[in-house]
Amino acid sequence: MKKTIITVSRQFGSGGRTIGKQLAEKLNIGYYDKEIVDKVADETGFDIKYVEERGEYAPSKSKFAYTFNTMSTPGVMNGMSAADFLWCIQRDVILQIAEKGPCVIVGRCADFILNERDDVLNVFIYADTDFKKDRIVRLYGESEKSPEKRLAEKDKKRAVNYKYYTGKQWGDPINYDLCLNSGRLGIDYCVSLLAEIYNAE
Amino acid sequence: MKKTIITVSRQFGSGGRTIGKQLAEKLNIGYYDKEIVDKVADETGFDIKYVEERGEYAPSKSKFAYTFNTMSTPGVMNGMSAADFLWCIQRDVILQIAEKGPCVIVGRCADFILNERDDVLNVFIYADTDFKKDRIVRLYGESEKSPEKRLAEKDKKRAVNYKYYTGKQWGDPINYDLCLNSGRLGIDYCVSLLAEIYNAE
Repeated sequence: MKKTIITVSRQFGSGGRTIGKQLAEKLNIGYYDKEIVDKVADETGFDIKYVEERGEYAPSKSKFAYTFNTMSTPGVMNGMSAADFLWCIQRDVILQIAEKGPCVIVGRCADFILNERDDVLNVFIYADTDFKKDRIVRLYGESEKSPEKRLAEKDKKRAVNYKYYTGKQWGDPINYDLCLNSGRLGIDYCVSLLAEIYNAE
Repeated sequence: MKKTIITVSRQFGSGGRTIGKQLAEKLNIGYYDKEIVDKVADETGFDIKYVEERGEYAPSKSKFAYTFNTMSTPGVMNGMSAADFLWCIQRDVILQIAEKGPCVIVGRCADFILNERDDVLNVFIYADTDFKKDRIVRLYGESEKSPEKRLAEKDKKRAVNYKYYTGKQWGDPINYDLCLNSGRLGIDYCVSLLAEIYNAE
């Protein structure tokens, strides 16, 4: 079956988000990344920064989450943590987006959330550490943390979050149709290759 | 730089060897798999079955290897084990093959052995267990061992051998330019996709 929905999971700094955005533009189909955050924030009333952080990163006992954990709002939160409640809303949003038709969805366990559909191509973008270090310093600037530490922390959080909600190992090739090394193939070529796959299948 | 040498590493049962062979035929370039075994056996005088087994699988204290380990043949074996001696010869054979020009090389740590060349595309082929189970039973017949056990044992041996000679983790995407799920993309499509990459770059 033709794959018209492309989920892009990516290592921090690999350029996966850029690849997803350029791919959607090239194919002239929907692109969902920050848009998911806005929609979830809109539906939940949660702060956008909180949704952005919590949507992809591991649940933690943040002050905010704790506040929700201790709230008793039967029928609304059903006693679940803010993170779990957010997961449910984000999951619904992603399922609705997929129903709308061809698109590229970046991150947020979309590969797992849409695993019952036959029209989804799951892609994982990764790269060598030097390539990622260079990119994050160039794009996001210097930081008090070393580039290696920033890379490791971000991916660790994504892996913990993915494991928590899917029970699977983030970045394990078996969860994806294909995995591309953006550092070796180049970001532009990854875009062309995925466009070819989209148009061919 | 254009990648004209394609190394194919593959999980047992994933169809990686078939993909490599069909790709070489489609591109009309050399294909090296069993040919490597024949050349190494020819150069070393080792039994073909031994070279075939030892060329990709973990060194072990087989009776044959032990015989060599205890031989003192200065200048020939330099006291190294038969497996290590075989690795050196096989490495030379693979380096010579790459010098000859465009080709597909299946297995035997060729991705690592050729890592100083800029014209090599390293591919890893993998698949879901059910896809691999079905293939090995269909292609290699039933066995007293369960398909799961046969799959696990073969890949374990490849992983141990790869770790032993390269210090790296076999199947870790970072060792390859791209990883393809042959169970989801289909063997024929993996061949077409790799041919497109070969012709495009």
